[in-house]
Amino acid sequence: MKPHAPAPPVVETDPVRIRELVVAARRAGRRVGFVPTMGALHAGHASLVERAAAECDDVVVSIFVNPKQFGPREDLDRYPRTLAADVALVGGKGARWVFAPEASTAYPAGHATSVVVAAPAADFEGAVRPGHFSGVATVVCWLFQVVPADVAYFGAKDWQQTVVVRRMVADLAIPIDVEVCPTIREPDGLAMSSRNAYLSPDERRRAVALHEGLQAAAARWREGAEIAVVEEAIRAALMARDIAVDYARVVDPDTLLAPGPGTAAVALVAGRLGATRLLDNILLPPRV
Amino acid sequence: MKPHAPAPPVVETDPVRIRELVVAARRAGRRVGFVPTMGALHAGHASLVERAAAECDDVVVSIFVNPKQFGPREDLDRYPRTLAADVALVGGKGARWVFAPEASTAYPAGHATSVVVAAPAADFEGAVRPGHFSGVATVVCWLFQVVPADVAYFGAKDWQQTVVVRRMVADLAIPIDVEVCPTIREPDGLAMSSRNAYLSPDERRRAVALHEGLQAAAARWREGAEIAVVEEAIRAALMARDIAVDYARVVDPDTLLAPGPGTAAVALVAGRLGATRLLDNILLPPRV
Repeated sequence: MKPHAPAPPVVETDPVRIRELVVAARRAGRRVGFVPTMGALHAGHASLVERAAAECDDVVVSIFVNPKQFGPREDLDRYPRTLAADVALVGGKGARWVFAPEASTAYPAGHATSVVVAAPAADFEGAVRPGHFSGVATVVCWLFQVVPADVAYFGAKDWQQTVVVRRMVADLAIPIDVEVCPTIREPDGLAMSSRNAYLSPDERRRAVALHEGLQAAAARWREGAEIAVVEEAIRAALMARDIAVDYARVVDPDTLLAPGPGTAAVALVAGRLGATRLLDNILLPPRV
Repeated sequence: MKPHAPAPPVVETDPVRIRELVVAARRAGRRVGFVPTMGALHAGHASLVERAAAECDDVVVSIFVNPKQFGPREDLDRYPRTLAADVALVGGKGARWVFAPEASTAYPAGHATSVVVAAPAADFEGAVRPGHFSGVATVVCWLFQVVPADVAYFGAKDWQQTVVVRRMVADLAIPIDVEVCPTIREPDGLAMSSRNAYLSPDERRRAVALHEGLQAAAARWREGAEIAVVEEAIRAALMARDIAVDYARVVDPDTLLAPGPGTAAVALVAGRLGATRLLDNILLPPRV
């Protein structure tokens, strides 16, 4: 199939129209990939678009700063909005369409429906940010109806989000594959995030502690240390750089519950630098 | 298009398989209609299947007694199950496929996702049956992913359910049309319901009071009576037959809030005869 995607991509704001385009492409036998984003795109998003373009005939990128996944005291108003640069970036990576709806399109007057994912959304980010994952699940469910692609790509950096999305897709039988792609990092190891832009130069230097802590945790894990010791390695790294620890936990990658013996695990960390929260994680392979 | 549907219909229990059949039919240009039911089918359901068969090339009927829409003290265990008769009935009306999943298929281990519709689900049945409409919305969302038909048919008898489903379909942009079809009645006017089977002969005679009350309400409405008077006509009819009134209200047909001046309305009634709850409603045309 292909060729496709003349740069620049076509920007659509109408959900009916983007759905028609995706359905027509699939009817023509084209494989369609979808990268949902909140804009403020960085190299992590770019890698998702590249992966989608490599695996699919057409790529849709959605750019929508979803108000429902921000709490009342969170950073909705100051969240970076860089639409023109975002469109140029994804065009360069092979996106054919950008879907950029208005909030009033996603949530018209009288909107009353929420998608709620219980267990895997309850702890960690769900505990710190009440309502966040309901906002995520609701908008992703909506996006998957409007952009009925073959496959959607999410970054591993927001690990719990990928668990919540996969749980919702399975439970509601939404006909889309979900691919989780590796976290992209700055040269010093800091995970790419739109919120890194909030960091002062000093905070930016200290932020590497999340990556350092996870590397130390992986070393303890390989040595066969107990989970409490692995978790403590993360905490120690954050505290050494004066970062407040929201959580530092080793859990099952799919359920986010205590890992079974001999199974893989994921180490999840969230820390606060001033007003900015940063997340990161690392997969820990099975050990006997 | 057509002809189709050799009787008896094919019974599928696998969501992947029924989805393939529906997608293939639509790809072949066939219009697919869907009638979701909990089985225990009666003439009301039959009318939905007939309507679907008249308007579509292929008809899917789902039969699934959804445990999530029953409360802990409700009638899940004694809800009538009559699969063989149901399949024969819908086959005679033109259904091509029956989708009859197991509960463990709809809700596998680890299932954690709910679809919640706030405002229109809060009052009336939602107030009497906490969690009921979340169970309905969740299973209907799942069914609409598994059976991606052109159009789904619901009976007007469960008016609030039709409002909740339409709200969910609009809010999540689920690509299916929802048709609401007229209530089918017994000769004395009692609305067809699977739960009518619970009524004793004496309760069955008294049950006509719901229809009588709604007819009286429609007469008061036509005369220009105030809403409180219209509602009182319904209550009086139920009380005259010794039926406990759960609610008797005149509301906006789409929002279930107070109707505006000069708009259409719907009168909703729910009453209890012994352990059995019965619902009914009547649309009231605009009046100046």
